[in-house]
Formats: sequence, C-alpha cells, structure tokens
Amino acid sequence: MGANKYAIGSLIPMLSSSCRLRDQQDGKHPEPKQEKDKTPQSYSISPPLDLSHHFSVSARNRVASNVKKFYKYFAIPGIHNLAGGLPHSSYFPYDTLEATVALPNRFDQNPPKKASNKNNNDQTNDTSPATHLTVPRESASTDPLTRIDLTTALQYGTAEGYPPLLSFVRQFVRENLHPNVPYTDGPEVVLTCGATDGFSKTIEALTNVWDEERDWVRNREGILCEEFVYMNAIQTVRPRGLNVIAVGMDNEGMRIEGQGGLKDVLENWDFSRGRRPHLMYTVTIGQNPTGSVLPVPRRREIYALCQKYDIIIVEDDPYWHLQYPSARQQLQSHFRGGQPDLQNGKCNYNVHGKPSGYPFLDSLVPSYLSIDTDGRVLRLDTFSKSIAPGCRLGWLTAQPKIVERIVFITETSTQQPSGFVQAMVASLIMGSDQDAHSQGQVMTAGDDGDRRPWKTDGWVRWLEGLRAGYEKRMQVMCTILEEGREVIGHSKNALSPSISSSSSDGEENEDDDDEDDDWHLLTKTPLYTFQFPRGGMFVWVRMCFETHPLWSREGVSAEQLSIALWKHLTRKPFLCLVAPGQMFDPTRGGNGEACRFFRLCFAPMAEGDVEAAAKGFVEGCKDFWRRGSLEEDEGGEEEL
Amino acid sequence: MGANKYAIGSLIPMLSSSCRLRDQQDGKHPEPKQEKDKTPQSYSISPPLDLSHHFSVSARNRVASNVKKFYKYFAIPGIHNLAGGLPHSSYFPYDTLEATVALPNRFDQNPPKKASNKNNNDQTNDTSPATHLTVPRESASTDPLTRIDLTTALQYGTAEGYPPLLSFVRQFVRENLHPNVPYTDGPEVVLTCGATDGFSKTIEALTNVWDEERDWVRNREGILCEEFVYMNAIQTVRPRGLNVIAVGMDNEGMRIEGQGGLKDVLENWDFSRGRRPHLMYTVTIGQNPTGSVLPVPRRREIYALCQKYDIIIVEDDPYWHLQYPSARQQLQSHFRGGQPDLQNGKCNYNVHGKPSGYPFLDSLVPSYLSIDTDGRVLRLDTFSKSIAPGCRLGWLTAQPKIVERIVFITETSTQQPSGFVQAMVASLIMGSDQDAHSQGQVMTAGDDGDRRPWKTDGWVRWLEGLRAGYEKRMQVMCTILEEGREVIGHSKNALSPSISSSSSDGEENEDDDDEDDDWHLLTKTPLYTFQFPRGGMFVWVRMCFETHPLWSREGVSAEQLSIALWKHLTRKPFLCLVAPGQMFDPTRGGNGEACRFFRLCFAPMAEGDVEAAAKGFVEGCKDFWRRGSLEEDEGGEEEL
Repeated sequence: MGANKYAIGSLIPMLSSSCRLRDQQDGKHPEPKQEKDKTPQSYSISPPLDLSHHFSVSARNRVASNVKKFYKYFAIPGIHNLAGGLPHSSYFPYDTLEATVALPNRFDQNPPKKASNKNNNDQTNDTSPATHLTVPRESASTDPLTRIDLTTALQYGTAEGYPPLLSFVRQFVRENLHPNVPYTDGPEVVLTCGATDGFSKTIEALTNVWDEERDWVRNREGILCEEFVYMNAIQTVRPRGLNVIAVGMDNEGMRIEGQGGLKDVLENWDFSRGRRPHLMYTVTIGQNPTGSVLPVPRRREIYALCQKYDIIIVEDDPYWHLQYPSARQQLQSHFRGGQPDLQNGKCNYNVHGKPSGYPFLDSLVPSYLSIDTDGRVLRLDTFSKSIAPGCRLGWLTAQPKIVERIVFITETSTQQPSGFVQAMVASLIMGSDQDAHSQGQVMTAGDDGDRRPWKTDGWVRWLEGLRAGYEKRMQVMCTILEEGREVIGHSKNALSPSISSSSSDGEENEDDDDEDDDWHLLTKTPLYTFQFPRGGMFVWVRMCFETHPLWSREGVSAEQLSIALWKHLTRKPFLCLVAPGQMFDPTRGGNGEACRFFRLCFAPMAEGDVEAAAKGFVEGCKDFWRRGSLEEDEGGEEEL
Repeated sequence: MGANKYAIGSLIPMLSSSCRLRDQQDGKHPEPKQEKDKTPQSYSISPPLDLSHHFSVSARNRVASNVKKFYKYFAIPGIHNLAGGLPHSSYFPYDTLEATVALPNRFDQNPPKKASNKNNNDQTNDTSPATHLTVPRESASTDPLTRIDLTTALQYGTAEGYPPLLSFVRQFVRENLHPNVPYTDGPEVVLTCGATDGFSKTIEALTNVWDEERDWVRNREGILCEEFVYMNAIQTVRPRGLNVIAVGMDNEGMRIEGQGGLKDVLENWDFSRGRRPHLMYTVTIGQNPTGSVLPVPRRREIYALCQKYDIIIVEDDPYWHLQYPSARQQLQSHFRGGQPDLQNGKCNYNVHGKPSGYPFLDSLVPSYLSIDTDGRVLRLDTFSKSIAPGCRLGWLTAQPKIVERIVFITETSTQQPSGFVQAMVASLIMGSDQDAHSQGQVMTAGDDGDRRPWKTDGWVRWLEGLRAGYEKRMQVMCTILEEGREVIGHSKNALSPSISSSSSDGEENEDDDDEDDDWHLLTKTPLYTFQFPRGGMFVWVRMCFETHPLWSREGVSAEQLSIALWKHLTRKPFLCLVAPGQMFDPTRGGNGEACRFFRLCFAPMAEGDVEAAAKGFVEGCKDFWRRGSLEEDEGGEEEL
C-alpha cells in the first residue's frame, strides 16, 4: 500500500475541518496507532469518521433489538426454547430445494477480438455445462457458516443475512472486491433485498422528510446526482421532499469543473433552496443511462470535494463487473485527435497495491471505497445483473456504524432476504456439505457432472463469462450503430442542410474508406452520435435533430421530433422500443438536452436478436429522416 | 348477506360525521346504486371512504411509476425491446428450480379428542406423503396468470407480485378468506416480504415522523395497541416518534369499557400528548402474547369506535388459521360458573352469510374486514406460519386506494418479493403447466406419487392439518401446565401463605378429584394461572409470586422474583428458556403487571419435546417455590 500513501495523504488537508475537529474534541477518534497497524505494506490509516450527525431522526432513535441479549441462553446445551415464536421446521412443506444450475464456465470468458455481425442464435438457449444442486432439509454440519439446509434457511434469521451467504459475501467484499479500503478494520456488509431496497433503507437512515407546509426551507435536505440518472432512485427521494440537484456530466461521468459541475454546485450553493446537499447518489461504472466509467483520478477529486463539504457518497454499482476494455480502444480510435477528456481514461487500476487474487478483478476500475479514508462511502450491490433480477438480493457495504443503522432498519422491515434465494445462491456458490460426500442424485445436463460448487474462483469466472457475453452484444449493436450513423447523399440532392464529411463533429472519418475518398460532392448527414459504452448495458444515443429536413424547413422542435421518431421506431418494419431521454432527466424537463437522447439496451433480447434490433433502430432513423411531415398523432404534446 | 343488513346498518349512524360529510361534499362517493348492486343476497353497500387525509406527507407525494405508460408498446407483436434495462434470461445460472414437497394431507386434520401426554416422536420427522415439483426455465403457457417459469419469475416483475401467485392470493382473499367485505368491489391485495415488511410500509404510508426538536407536540401522531403486544411492531413505530398507547385487555382481547379500555382512552384523550391516535395495531386471533381471540360482537363495538374517531385498523393476523375450538370447551369447563366475559365467546361465525366454500374457513372467527363498511381496515398476512418464516412472503389486504400507496412504496423499496419464493410457492399451490402433461421426473417420498398441485382445496387442507398439529401441541403443553399449577401441602407445614382450595382464584376445582376431596387440612399453593389459548402459538402464564415464601417473609418484589425464576428455569435439570412478560410491554415498564407473566411457545421444538419442555417449566417452578433465598446474581437490577 506504500506506493499510494502520498496519493491519499494529499487529500487529507482538504478534509472538512468541522468534521475533523468535532471528532477530535469528542475524543472518539484518537490518532491512528501507527505501530500497531504497521504491516509490510501498510501506511497509517485511521478509523472511519463518526458521521452520525447525518443520521435521520428516526435512524438516530433506533436501538438494538432486545432479543439479542437472550442469544447466550440459546446456546445452553439441551435448552428447551419456549421463548421464540417460531414454527418447528417439520411444518415446512418443503423437504428439499433443488436446482439445475450452470457451471461457472458456461460462457466463454474471452472478449471478442473484433465485432461480428454473425447471428449467434446457437448460444442463446445453451444450458450446458450444468449440474444439479440439492439443499437438504437438514444438514449434517453444525457450523452455521457452512450449514446450508432448509431447517435454517426457511426459519427466522438474522437481519445481517443468512450466515453462509453473508460470510461468503463479506469475505468476497473485503478480500477480493475491495481489498484496499483505507480505514481501520475495513467495511462491514449487510444483505439487502436488492439495490433498490438498499437505497431505500439508506435514504431512510440518512434523510428526513421535508414538508413544505411544516418545515422551514432552510431545513430542506438535498441529494446530488448525475445530470442523467436512473430515475427509480429519484422516485425514492422525491416523495420525501428532498432537493434533487443534477450535476453536469461528460464522457467519463460527473463533471467537476465548469458551470453546473460539482465544484460550481457546491461552492455557489443557493441556501434559499435549503441545506447544501449532504448526499450524493452516483452510478460510476456503466452509468445508467450514459454508459460512462468514472476513472480513478476523477474519483479522487470528487471524493476530496465530498470531504470538504461533508457529503456521503452513495455508490450504486450494479454493472461493476461489466467493464469493456474494447470500448476504450474503440473510443480512442473513433475520437483520435479530439475529445481530450478521454485521454484521462487510463485508469489507475488497483490503486492501493494489495491484489484481489484475480486478474479479472484487478483489471476493473475500483469502487470509491478504495479511496474512502473517512468512511463516507456507502456502496450498493445487487445480484440482479450477475445472477437474476428476480433474486431480490444484494448487499450494502459501508463503515460499521452506518451498516449498524441499516441492520436496525432491516429488523423492522424486510427482516432478511427470502431464505429461498439465500439458500439457493449460497448453495450455488458455496455448495452444501452433501457435495463433499457426493450424496443424493446427480442430474447433469452437461457432459461431466461436475458437482463441485463454484466457490470464489467459479464466481469470478462466471462474472468474467458474463462480461464477455455482454461485451459481445455491445460490440454487435455498436458496430451496426456506427455503420448507420450517417446517410450519404449528393450535396445538391440533399433534403436538409447537411455537414460535409470533413467537419462532421470535428472528426476525420478516415475509416469510412468505402464512401469518403475525399469526394467533396458527397455529403454526410449525421443522424446521431454515440460512444461505445465502457461498461454496463446501455448505449446513449444523441440524435442530430438539427439535420432533419423538418428542423429548419418547418421549425419543428427537437422535442416534437423526439416524440415522432420514438413512435416511428415502434412501427413496422422497425419494431424498436427505445427509452426516451426524458425518462432519465431528474430535473423533470429542466434539462432541454434530454429529449435529444435515446437509451438503447443490448441486454434484454436473445443474443441472436441484438443485430436485428440494432438494424431496426438504424433503418427506422434513416426512414424518419426521409419523412417530410409529421402525422396528427405524432410530435404532439404527449409526454413520453 | 340480507341476514346481516341490520347488524351493519346499526353502525352507520355512528360513522364519523366529519368523514362522511367530507366525502359527500367532494361528491366522490355518491350514494350506493342500490338497483345495480342488488343480488339475491345483497344489501346496500357503498364504496370505501376516501381516507387519504391519513396518508403521510411522503405517501401523498408519491406518483405512479412513469414506466407504466409504455406497457401498451411492450405488447406489440415482434417488438424489439431495447428500452428495458433487464438482462436476458439466458444469463441466469438456474435452468430449473425444483423441490420435494409435502402433499396437503401430510398432517391429520382431526383435532385431538382429548389431550395425550404420549410422546409422539414418530411424527416429528415425517416427510410423507411427498411429491416433486419443477419450475422449468421456460413454460409453454403464454397466460401470465398460469405461466410459472424462471424466465418470468427470475426477471424484474411488478410490485403487486408475481402474476400467478398474486392471482391465487387475490382470489383466495376475496372469495374464500373474506367473502363478505361490505364495500363496493371489495378489497385489493399486494404481496409483501412478510407481515413485518407490510407493517413497515403501512407505517410509512400512514404516519409522519415526529421530531421533538422540530415539531409541535400537538402534531405528534399516535398508535393504539393492546396492553401486551408483539414488540417488533412497537420497534417499528417508536423511532418515528409516535405515541404508543396501550389499551387494556381481558381474556378476549382489547377491552372497550372501564379504565384504560378503548372508550376511556379515546373519550378522555389528553391532547397535551399529541393528536388523538388515528391508527390501531391489533392482533386479534391467537394474540401475541396472550393467545386470545377477539369475538365478532366485540369487533363490532371496537369498529364503531374506530368509525367515530376516524381510526384506521391495522389487523396483523399471522395465526388466523390456528384457532382451537377445544380450548374454548376447556376454558368453559375450567372456569365454569365464573369469568362471565368468556360467555361472550360464542362467535357469530361467517357473519355475512356468503359461505367461503370450506367448512374449515367458515368455522373461523372472521377478520375485521368482514365488518369493514368504510374501508378502514388494513390487514397483514404472512406465509411465515403457514409455509415457513424464511419465505419472507405475505400480503396486505385493504381498500384499493390504500393498496395503491403500498404499491408505490414497494416500487422504490423491495420492488417485489424474491422470485425464488414466489415461483416455489406458486408452483406448490397452483402447479406448473408441466404438471398437466406429467412431464419431467417424478420423485415421490410417499406412496402414490401424486403430482397434482395443491390448488385451493389442498391449501385449505394443509392449513387444517397445521391447525390440528398445533392444537395437539397446545393440548399437550396446557394439560401438563394445568396439572402442575399448584403445589399441595399440609397447611401447618406450608412455607407460605397459601390459599385454600375453595377460594383459589374464585374457582371450584371439582376436576382435581385426586387431591382435593374437601379435605381442608390440605392447602393448595397456586404457582401460576393461565388459560388454554384459543388460537396461535403461545400460552400466557401469570405467576402467583405472592404465594412464594420470599414474598411476604423477605419482601422480595415480583420483579426480583421474576428475574430469579427466569434464570432458575434455564438451569439444569429444567433447561427452559421462556419469554419474560416485560418483552411484551409497550409502555417500557409502565405496566407493573408485565413482570408477573411469562410467554411459553409450544411451536419451536420437535413435537416429541413439547412434553419435556412443559414438564421442565412445571418442575422448575415447583423447585423455585421451595427456595428460601435468592443468589447474588439473581433478582438484581438486570433487566430482562
């Protein structure tokens, strides 16, 4: 870790002095015991800051469940438990839970060398290699960390999560995914019913409802988010009366500098709107909807601002394992010579030195947790994009005192994720003791009937296979979009004011060797621009409505064209349903740019359909640009 | 329904006039169209009242998800869905979910004729009859209400619940469980992650956080509950700053009359504490911890008071299917001649005439929903006591406008219960289309390999079997407690002031023909009193500490004796862990009676252990009454 001591140390003087002082006065956080913490690679680290001043009134009022003081009595050998109000497992109608499941190597982990438009229908319904797992009614194991059976999984459990699954997640988080969290003793985890549930509990823990009729404006709390954002998060906070403050973005994610950038928003905060925001909601990898990946240097700068203004960062990262190295190459070739901010994209992987144990994990841009000296990062994870959305299973990672509040909230709400999914995922990854003895029935759809559980190796291998699968889809879709982003015409025949090839978006299209060839009588009309996403599941396409014939001729607005095109795309033969940009505008129409964007997802269809879907979009756009009028039901005031 | 027209009609003049007036002025609730609603059995019913003035600020601010307007486009044949951010099901590592499950008749449904102390170890691990179920990756069915497969269950879903399971629950609720809800079009349901989750969402929808430092006392909201209560519910509301108001109880549940009864609390509300409570939390069947069952006549009276004072009733009924007719007989024989309030216990089953279709369901005391003319009852159900607690699955039933708010809250929190449990329970009860074709593998632990799904008939039969199983446990435990509730001694040798048999609790113990025989030289020292619970899982035992030798001799308090006895019971050879009464006191020590009670649960142990556990308690009590002093570590100030 020594190599990064100074990188982190350089941020320390920027710490919010009020926070630091408060802690020192309370005497809660003595200076780090350097001698004790020293390891061969160590540098001085401190305990996380006390951030309890950010807790909501209701979160502060919470106390530990009074049942816990009985735990020591539960452990008396032979004790008759007449105290707990729980049904005996003999009354559960399930004798086993079983599943046919994939082996970790079901999908090739090698990313495609070059995009191929070939239809890959053959892999779409591939269900090999596979194996069969069984969760028995009662395991022979007495160790709660390895005992996976229905007697425990279908009983009432602890709010932190089912012990075998919790222990796997905790170890994976602390040793593999975030091995370098720079505060004493590292972060804690609690399982959630998915990231949305985790976010809801976070908001309950860290914000107070503001009521216009009851409260002073000066008490109104606020949350920062990206300019374009996953709206479910906004719909979580808006009913509580919070200010939602959109921060400008560029190709890499949240902007720091310039008007509307983070620095501007925080330095020039208008207190007549309420308190300066104390929360930031951010998706940093494969950002939804823009597909950007926030590089480490910018994380450091944003983190320093959050320290200065005492802001808690809520990092929602469902796509962390879906990072596409090929997109960066593509971007750099596509934009070579221009777009200087892309040059910063060389991420400083594995910033703190301690390896994860897996080259795949080491290759990924790390979480904000990796630079979280203060303990002000709360990270939301989910199994929705790595196993299945219907799991409703995820976890939350943060400093222990924050996790404790989430556990309290869990005790009186969801209690724990469903034991059915916890047992099934635990069994998939960790296996049951049955596997060791090869008891029970083996049903293999694959060739060799490998009954070994995934373990961490298999879990990482599975994620790598998913990454490769999505990267291939991304390449298929983006290559088609890339090829179709312009229409070529003779300048004298052009229906619209078009842009000559040499000035199109400041790019030199030397790659388009078929049509270009410096023949200046040909014009190129750009339909849209986009970038190959560097992570996630989405392509964020900006429509060039100003090149549409109706733009200058009839004065049709971008908003009208957006609605008309959206409907045009849904018709035969294009049959494409895309997500309109307005759906991602947290300012509710305040962002005039939003209607120029569409979000295309390359995840929901069968693999063989990605090509047809992308072509439908391209052909629909081309056809729309040929239209000379809008119909009655198009481009009206109907809001998408 | 005609027969009960007048019973309900008689409550109408008592309606809160303010509510009625508000609705009429708004013109929202025209008088019921009597002609249209008339059926052979009908009487005039109205739509539910508009109770939106009870919604919390944040619940009022919620709006429907903006994704729903796209649903019509999703249905276009052949449409390429590039809009949704969801992974394709080929990336789910589960190819099937399977289970070995019980047939509905696993447990005998006949309640025991007479309690037997015989050890029934033979049934404890009985797992026959059983069958095997398989949820396939993709079902052949295209009807969302019958299609049960992983492609749908493990995908993102709707907040109301997984369509096949939701449709079963909704039909069961509306046609079988509550066929007589007296408002137009009946109630709606939404699935929850268990009753605790349902309660948490209810509280979010219907209460505002009150902050002592920010808010006027006059704005503090309150919730009514029973004098002894399931504390998790209280721990849900207390952090929000609500007043928690305990209402007195008797053998049947919440009291109406007398000091501390419901009428007293509401009529003489002290507004210096805050607003008069607008919510009531109640467990009416097998009340936790007291085991009481609230009869219909008293429901009517409480409901009328809730109308008068505009209170929403939150009915939490996890034990509705565990009602014990044998306990009533036992009670009446036990208390014959005394305890007049027990005579009201002849419940007016099936109050509104329309049968449920099942004698078992018709025999049960019905929900508050059955008399809910206003739509002010919100009922919480759970699968925790009918399938397994680890399901984290339940449902909430209320008028549609209230359910709508819960759905909005669900969209930004849990989203839906886990698809793993929803698919498994749907498959268990409704079956998959595979069952119809008898495809797949049949693995039967039972004799005949019956692969038919349970359907409603099987579900009701299963519940009946559970009821019989718990009733048997209850009888075993209570018979032992009954036999051991007194110690017999010669009056001159008695260590304590004891009560002669003829005056013991006002009862004549003619049943105790072995020891009694009117021989007045013998004394009976009662150790505790209790009643056979009429429902649920708990026996509520009141200790007679005033008969303990240390009570009068040393002046040891009930609280000290309670703690000492609790610890005494955990020791060898008694080894009993019971729940101290203070754990159920919502007034945090304000109820001086609480320390006199212990709650004994007859559910958590193997069936064969019920007897030993109960005997351990009895012997422990007897032994404790022989003790002449308390040890250092007992009876101290340690709070249980």
